[in-house]
Amino acid sequence: MEPVFPQILEAASRIAPFVHRTPVLTCRSLDRIYGAGLFFKCENLQKVGAFKIRGATNAVFCLGEEEASRGVATHSSGNHAAALAQAARWRAIPCYVVMPRDAPEVKKKAVEGYGAQITFCEPTLQAREQTLQAIVRATGATFIHPYNHPRVIEGQGTVAMELLEEVPSLDAVVVPVGGGGLLSGTALAISARSPRTMVLAGEPERADDAIRSLREGRILPPQNPDTVADGLRTSLGTLTFPIIQRLVHSIFPVSEEAILEAMRDIWERMKLVVEPSGAVPLAAVKVSGRLLEGKRVGIILSGGNVDLDRLPFRPAAT
Amino acid sequence: MEPVFPQILEAASRIAPFVHRTPVLTCRSLDRIYGAGLFFKCENLQKVGAFKIRGATNAVFCLGEEEASRGVATHSSGNHAAALAQAARWRAIPCYVVMPRDAPEVKKKAVEGYGAQITFCEPTLQAREQTLQAIVRATGATFIHPYNHPRVIEGQGTVAMELLEEVPSLDAVVVPVGGGGLLSGTALAISARSPRTMVLAGEPERADDAIRSLREGRILPPQNPDTVADGLRTSLGTLTFPIIQRLVHSIFPVSEEAILEAMRDIWERMKLVVEPSGAVPLAAVKVSGRLLEGKRVGIILSGGNVDLDRLPFRPAAT
Repeated sequence: MEPVFPQILEAASRIAPFVHRTPVLTCRSLDRIYGAGLFFKCENLQKVGAFKIRGATNAVFCLGEEEASRGVATHSSGNHAAALAQAARWRAIPCYVVMPRDAPEVKKKAVEGYGAQITFCEPTLQAREQTLQAIVRATGATFIHPYNHPRVIEGQGTVAMELLEEVPSLDAVVVPVGGGGLLSGTALAISARSPRTMVLAGEPERADDAIRSLREGRILPPQNPDTVADGLRTSLGTLTFPIIQRLVHSIFPVSEEAILEAMRDIWERMKLVVEPSGAVPLAAVKVSGRLLEGKRVGIILSGGNVDLDRLPFRPAAT
Repeated sequence: MEPVFPQILEAASRIAPFVHRTPVLTCRSLDRIYGAGLFFKCENLQKVGAFKIRGATNAVFCLGEEEASRGVATHSSGNHAAALAQAARWRAIPCYVVMPRDAPEVKKKAVEGYGAQITFCEPTLQAREQTLQAIVRATGATFIHPYNHPRVIEGQGTVAMELLEEVPSLDAVVVPVGGGGLLSGTALAISARSPRTMVLAGEPERADDAIRSLREGRILPPQNPDTVADGLRTSLGTLTFPIIQRLVHSIFPVSEEAILEAMRDIWERMKLVVEPSGAVPLAAVKVSGRLLEGKRVGIILSGGNVDLDRLPFRPAAT
């Protein structure tokens, strides 16, 4: 079943008892620096520290009783795993997460803290998928893909719905793109509710598979996606790609330097902790040339999960 | 003229066109850790990154035309100087700031960025006061004290007013205390509007002059105030002390470790950049024993101005 707009409205009601309606903040000094009227939708202040809780919660609460009772499973070392674990706990069902052995300690702890059962595997795609399949076979749990899942995409679309409710007549909305869950959900919501608003994305130059995929008309994998924006290293999915093809106006490549600069601007000037992936849309505004000059632009700050002991800032003086 | 409650209402209307009405945020995981229902009033998200803009703006816009035209002056290397500079710019009048030569580069830049004229002096109290006097004599500018000024205290009282409007029936409000501007303004507002709400403060153990002053019944200076909470190293003032004596229920001393732990909790779990001084109230909740257990507690996050290149976090593992 393809994700569709009316289901985003249902997702909004379904997840409302669990997730925050996050604030939309503005910052005059960033408006000056970036040359546009910026409206930041703060999903870094969301439960679990990222928008991912929306899709995961929607998927978990769409399951039938019997299916749900056997639990949910996923492979992810990032925000989706923590989000799925939290959503499963809300529904009081088991959650199984497959993680590479070498995942950062801080991520293991987060997922454990939300009550998931972790199975570690070798850090290869094959090991990850085989391990997940074995768990699903043994437990009967339902696999909830991090983004290539209609209920997940519809859940992520609720971010843009809230943004539109709070800030009317936006000229553009800019989001980060990794697997495309947030971008396709946003595109579905915006095109239905505010068709004159452009849907734009930022993507790390070093993981520019979405840009290349759109150019070539088929899903390409990222090549050595060595970017500080660790949430954006995945390729598009079979559900997200066609929506992005159809409804997204443009994706801008951003350099590592631009990501870190945007991230620092948000920390210093807005006093918000945002992860590198979450700073990618602001970096995209900078490289978009005059397209957004003086325009009203919604920015989705997608998440705030960083390891405070390993911050990527470098002293400005050097 | 003593600061009084009705003037806080006037201050609220006077500054409303300029300052943010900051959001009140909650965080379930901090509620669990700290054992209370916490409501965080986010003055770190305020203009200039701190509540200080309220008092400064109120003082600047209370001046008569003629007086205002000669400008305002202060000595401060912190948030008040930046706030006064911004407020003066809004009123299009000069602002003169005396700063010690050795003030951090980042603070000099902030104050300059808001358009103030800085005069540097030797890093002694005497040099600072003499330099300020010379400037006031030469320019006719009005000295706006960082906290011992009735219009400043009334301006700071607007934080608690907004908090009470948003969160009814609080059992306590906890703020940091340095010179006592925020604490005395908060106490005036709370005692008038919600007399059953306790007014509490946190103070660094290493700058515990307010606690000692209350005990001895007279204003004592801090002794070697070597604390990471650099906004709280000042002594109480002749206006703030009697209000605190009369209306504040208790001040809790907090260790450096407790401040850094609270600060890290806020960054990690709330995704908010808060300066050490701003984390002091949450640290105070922890040391308050069972006083606040299960209670509804307002926390004023006073500011978010930190140097990202000199963060005081230490790896949790060590």
